[in-house]
Amino acid sequence: MGRLSQRRKVHKYVLGSEHPVRHKEDVLAVEEPLEIRLSTPLGGMTYSVTMRTPGDDFDLVAGFLVSEGVVWESGQIVSERFCAGEDEQGRQTFNVVDAQLRPGVPLPDTGRHVYTSSSCGICGTESIEAVRRSSHHSPAHDGVRLLPELVAGLPARLRAAQALFDRTGGVHAAGLFSVGDDGTSAELLCLREDVGRHNAVDKVVGWALRESRLPLAGTVLQVSGRASFELVQKAAMAGIPVLAAVSAPSTLAVELAEESGVTLIGFSRGDGFNVYAGHERLATS
Amino acid sequence: MGRLSQRRKVHKYVLGSEHPVRHKEDVLAVEEPLEIRLSTPLGGMTYSVTMRTPGDDFDLVAGFLVSEGVVWESGQIVSERFCAGEDEQGRQTFNVVDAQLRPGVPLPDTGRHVYTSSSCGICGTESIEAVRRSSHHSPAHDGVRLLPELVAGLPARLRAAQALFDRTGGVHAAGLFSVGDDGTSAELLCLREDVGRHNAVDKVVGWALRESRLPLAGTVLQVSGRASFELVQKAAMAGIPVLAAVSAPSTLAVELAEESGVTLIGFSRGDGFNVYAGHERLATS
Repeated sequence: MGRLSQRRKVHKYVLGSEHPVRHKEDVLAVEEPLEIRLSTPLGGMTYSVTMRTPGDDFDLVAGFLVSEGVVWESGQIVSERFCAGEDEQGRQTFNVVDAQLRPGVPLPDTGRHVYTSSSCGICGTESIEAVRRSSHHSPAHDGVRLLPELVAGLPARLRAAQALFDRTGGVHAAGLFSVGDDGTSAELLCLREDVGRHNAVDKVVGWALRESRLPLAGTVLQVSGRASFELVQKAAMAGIPVLAAVSAPSTLAVELAEESGVTLIGFSRGDGFNVYAGHERLATS
Repeated sequence: MGRLSQRRKVHKYVLGSEHPVRHKEDVLAVEEPLEIRLSTPLGGMTYSVTMRTPGDDFDLVAGFLVSEGVVWESGQIVSERFCAGEDEQGRQTFNVVDAQLRPGVPLPDTGRHVYTSSSCGICGTESIEAVRRSSHHSPAHDGVRLLPELVAGLPARLRAAQALFDRTGGVHAAGLFSVGDDGTSAELLCLREDVGRHNAVDKVVGWALRESRLPLAGTVLQVSGRASFELVQKAAMAGIPVLAAVSAPSTLAVELAEESGVTLIGFSRGDGFNVYAGHERLATS
């Protein structure tokens, strides 16, 4: 079960310490896409692609199908198996599961195409590859620089500006900060809250689109929760060069940040933070 | 913006206090479905239904379309408007947004049906109603009873059993407990962890399906995070009578819990908790 977590090198910043930057190893939760396929004697379909931590994948698929109302008794799933799926090195990825439904259990009506072969070996993994999108606003060459003290202060500023959180304790926040030229100051441009953390980020990016501000060069997006693959992708699509999270990133979030040129900061807690990708944007004072 | 939060009556349990049960009002974050439609001169489609906190909905739709790579410049969205959508009382729900794309911006290739009329007024809201599913395993008549002390101890037991969390700080957990006949003890049947909190619950439910244990009568599902609509739905679909969360529930989570007969507990923190629905399952010692 080594796929549940992975070790990664991080730059750990501790404000006010003798050695403010330490090179450390951190253990990250693994996040990978899983494609769920359904098959019956009459045909099959790609039902869903979900981001998940590998492990207990047959349970995940079975439970998802219960939640969606596709099945409700154990005999309705005849078998589950991993389809052939290979990464660039030709290794089996174990990221495609085909669930064979008992004859008579109807395929869900998603309005999507149902293919006529139930053999999952011959299908590609286009739907998994489609989770990675290319950005028209790549932040890779954004030259913004930030002082560590500025970064460490953003969670408190986000919290202070949050109107809804204090009343309900149940919403996520995303705040977009514009960084000053010398990297020592930042202005809060837009704050949005939502029960869904992806929605809070979408609301910020949508505000920027409607204000004709894309790409969002020279900005930091500070979020209240964890940093998943999808949040890094949203930052990259909007040209945001720095994503800072209060909590942990996943492995795939770090990989995408490296690929797309997003500086990824996690565990930002006032007195310090970890940098998982794009460390060069942190200025040494 | 009164729709961002709502007041609800709750039963607040404080262990070891003179008056262990208090009737209080709590402020909850509103959660409602939003249907996103896209239209062009050549046709339109329902693109997505997302659960969100109402407010800044045009920003949410625009940002979601940037994240998905559908648009990347402000001019590509010609207009956004709320479609007619009514609840049972005939009130406009503001839960359907139609984004009109500039001619030449292609509709995303989702493999789903594209309808040929771009008038959103004539469409029903089937896709929003489809988020509520009827369960084959309704927990409404489950007679399980629990002592408050048992409920309050479950988060610590979940945490103690978590193998992955302590290493990464980045995963959610869901634990299924079977309650003893006298309501004073519970046995941990299954614990699952994942970067996605929905996945952790699906893994638990899928384990139960594969073990032929559905419906999960007499059980409590303890989760590490918030309680959203979708988590209550997953509990109801599996016949789980009690869902307990460490953090806050949303309004729609409480409504669905009331409708489906799930006891919903939030802010469970060791020394007490709030009961938002199905209070009758809490035993008085």
